[in-house]
Amino acid sequence: MSDAWQRLVPKLEELSHLRAAGTLLSWDQAVLMPPKGAPARAGTLATIETIAHERLTDPELGDLIEALASDTTLDEGQAANVRVLKRDHFKALRLPPALVAELARARGVAYEAWTEARPASDFRILQPHLERLVSLKIEEADALGYEEERYDALLDHYEPGMTTRRVEELFGGLVEGLRPLVEDAIPPEAERPAWLEQPFEALQQDRLCRWLVSSIGFSFEGGRLDSSPHPFTSSIGPGDVRQTIRTQPNALLPSIYAALHETGHALYEQGIPDSFVGLPAGSAPSLGMHESQSRLWENLVGRRRSFTDFLLPHVKERFPAELGTVSPDEFHLGVNYPERTTIRIYADELTYNLHIAMRLEIELALFRNELDVADLPDAWDAGMEEHLGIRPRDDGDGVLQDVHWSMGLQGYFPTYTLGNIYSAAFYNKAEEELGGLDDDFHNGDVSRLLGWLREKIHSQAYLYQASELAEKVVGQQVSPEPLLEYLKEKYTSLT
Amino acid sequence: MSDAWQRLVPKLEELSHLRAAGTLLSWDQAVLMPPKGAPARAGTLATIETIAHERLTDPELGDLIEALASDTTLDEGQAANVRVLKRDHFKALRLPPALVAELARARGVAYEAWTEARPASDFRILQPHLERLVSLKIEEADALGYEEERYDALLDHYEPGMTTRRVEELFGGLVEGLRPLVEDAIPPEAERPAWLEQPFEALQQDRLCRWLVSSIGFSFEGGRLDSSPHPFTSSIGPGDVRQTIRTQPNALLPSIYAALHETGHALYEQGIPDSFVGLPAGSAPSLGMHESQSRLWENLVGRRRSFTDFLLPHVKERFPAELGTVSPDEFHLGVNYPERTTIRIYADELTYNLHIAMRLEIELALFRNELDVADLPDAWDAGMEEHLGIRPRDDGDGVLQDVHWSMGLQGYFPTYTLGNIYSAAFYNKAEEELGGLDDDFHNGDVSRLLGWLREKIHSQAYLYQASELAEKVVGQQVSPEPLLEYLKEKYTSLT
Repeated sequence: MSDAWQRLVPKLEELSHLRAAGTLLSWDQAVLMPPKGAPARAGTLATIETIAHERLTDPELGDLIEALASDTTLDEGQAANVRVLKRDHFKALRLPPALVAELARARGVAYEAWTEARPASDFRILQPHLERLVSLKIEEADALGYEEERYDALLDHYEPGMTTRRVEELFGGLVEGLRPLVEDAIPPEAERPAWLEQPFEALQQDRLCRWLVSSIGFSFEGGRLDSSPHPFTSSIGPGDVRQTIRTQPNALLPSIYAALHETGHALYEQGIPDSFVGLPAGSAPSLGMHESQSRLWENLVGRRRSFTDFLLPHVKERFPAELGTVSPDEFHLGVNYPERTTIRIYADELTYNLHIAMRLEIELALFRNELDVADLPDAWDAGMEEHLGIRPRDDGDGVLQDVHWSMGLQGYFPTYTLGNIYSAAFYNKAEEELGGLDDDFHNGDVSRLLGWLREKIHSQAYLYQASELAEKVVGQQVSPEPLLEYLKEKYTSLT
Repeated sequence: MSDAWQRLVPKLEELSHLRAAGTLLSWDQAVLMPPKGAPARAGTLATIETIAHERLTDPELGDLIEALASDTTLDEGQAANVRVLKRDHFKALRLPPALVAELARARGVAYEAWTEARPASDFRILQPHLERLVSLKIEEADALGYEEERYDALLDHYEPGMTTRRVEELFGGLVEGLRPLVEDAIPPEAERPAWLEQPFEALQQDRLCRWLVSSIGFSFEGGRLDSSPHPFTSSIGPGDVRQTIRTQPNALLPSIYAALHETGHALYEQGIPDSFVGLPAGSAPSLGMHESQSRLWENLVGRRRSFTDFLLPHVKERFPAELGTVSPDEFHLGVNYPERTTIRIYADELTYNLHIAMRLEIELALFRNELDVADLPDAWDAGMEEHLGIRPRDDGDGVLQDVHWSMGLQGYFPTYTLGNIYSAAFYNKAEEELGGLDDDFHNGDVSRLLGWLREKIHSQAYLYQASELAEKVVGQQVSPEPLLEYLKEKYTSLT
């Protein structure tokens, strides 16, 4: 075995352990930490990140990477680890430490301002801090470099290899196809089924979710399910993948579908070979690819008729008084109930991607110097009007609803829609290759589908870039067509 | 302010953050981590410890320590931090890295062997690994150095400044006084009150403990209470002190008294000024001093008549069917029920220190080369016979009962008894200065006592060595007399 590789291994392990420590500190911060622990935790996280950055930019590591980048004796996995590490190493080197520190500070300040601005519905509280943050993100993009335009550098954080040009192409086709569907499927005034909103006991919701995630393959031997204000999934390390849910007192579907969504992420992480976990290539190749799995389980599986038919009796068993009279038709309609909402996270499958398309347009305008931060609220309201035909009540209901921009996550939103596009393409391919998935789901059996995803996607970790992997899986370049066809079929049969 | 001090601060912060990360990783490992996460967690912990050791032995840090050790402009807290850091720095330097790594490995192996040996009741499974570990502990002690004898160096890990000579003096007086008490108080054959053992619902036990720890001052804003197989307390950092309890299905008192014990530790940690927490001097000066607080709340407060009288109605409220007919006399007797047991952790206050005295004798013999590891089981059984007049059924009931020796914690046991000795001396002094504590406790009010402990002990952190601090608090060198008097009074009135 290559001598340079042997010398790299302990450095990879150290980086992996530092990442694990940071991930646990963040997980605990979001899930368990007592309130008074917050200030000290921020410092602890910063120290771990600083040490990891110091190790990642170590010149000795750079020498090993150089030696290994042209080493033809490496196997496929080793080569992938070197490739991803090289990318991370040089990206880290390109950012001046002063900029990294300034970005961290500005993110903290903007986030704090957002937590104040949102309940007050007052964008002006956030504006100066967001202006500062956006100008630092521009500096960051310019320091990292890009081929065609600045937004490429932002995208590259979350979707390596993806370009703005390609994103616009995919979004263009999708939006064009979605518009008429939305017009047809969503009546301007409609009444939500009454059973959706009523008291559902938290403990029973929790038990239902535990049974559900376990029944679709989540391993509690190698993971946990806890509660947090915002559901999320974290991979601490090999054999330790944690998801969270949030139960609402007056609705049941949000916890069930958040659990299915997070389990999609968690099954991905639990499907990455242990020998890879924590290494540079031991993760999904992109957030869009990760989101493809959460959306697939939440929507493509979780909201299809065969699955809701399987689910309903189990739900009724936990909530006989609340849902005893709900029919399979009614349940399926409730799970897929279409409505025009101003809030992204409440949007149905049909309108969700329009929320994202609008955010993409705004981000592009910002980073092409065509829009000032001060004009974000107007641009937002105009975008909602154009894409969804509705206007937010106020900034809280509009431009302030998401935390992403205040956390410096510019370039992140498109990954949600990329995930949706991938998910439909993958599902189609799985059905084509396996056949009869609906029969499986009717019986609550997802094992053939999970096995297929494990083989085709999870076990591949970061051996390929996301677009390459997607192309390998579906046999051709991915397009928005499968998603559009799926949505058309579903929403035509619902109305 | 001193320039060297200014340069030391970020280094102290980094050490503090590394310590916090390691503590959280360990806490999570014991409380939450899914089983499959174990192997990776061990690696993550080792990496964090290695980095902390690297920082602690950094020559640049050594230069700053040298400069600051003679800096007369430092305030009392700064000087204490430099003093403790200097001690830690030189201790870390004195241990060859190869020995540190070998000790870590041998501890891991011995611990694994213990988990197998104990249920099998077979000391021979552990023996070769414990032999290896003891010989490494001898190397460690010799590398660290000592003034009078090797065991001083082991004690110094847990009880800085304490000597074997002084420990033997304290234990000698205590054992001599305890023997006749035990003879008088514990009838050879006795029947435990029947109410002690019956089913107690876990959720109600948990709620009772939450109420109890909160009512004596534990802050949930700055801490947590969780469950783990072995109760313990961890200070993750400022504003984040976590204790655990374990509920047993067929007994209530163990969870209540474990909660009181751990709350004693937790109140200490929550009483250390935030500005000190995480710094070298931001902890108790010794484990014995820490244990003084856990024992004080568990025993001196928790098992005294005025407190059990306050507690009983609250316990009955949670368990009316189980305890409705138990009288205050019966409750107090049950809480203090004396019996000769082979198992240390089940021992009453009277015999507990005899279990420790026997362990001390064995450890001294081992490290004075008067006893071989192979002869430990015989030495154990003989010690039990001599001190308690009973013999263990087998090795599991005897020499294998504690995990300490298999974790390399030789020198640790005496701190339990030092804690007991301190606790009685402190309680006497508090009553002398405050007066009427029993009246407070009858009303469930512990605030005057807690305030006194905060001022005299908790807020002092590690400004003084444990024996100095104890002497400042009680006004004279601490002796076993207050403990003996307390036990004599209690157990004379019980029988």
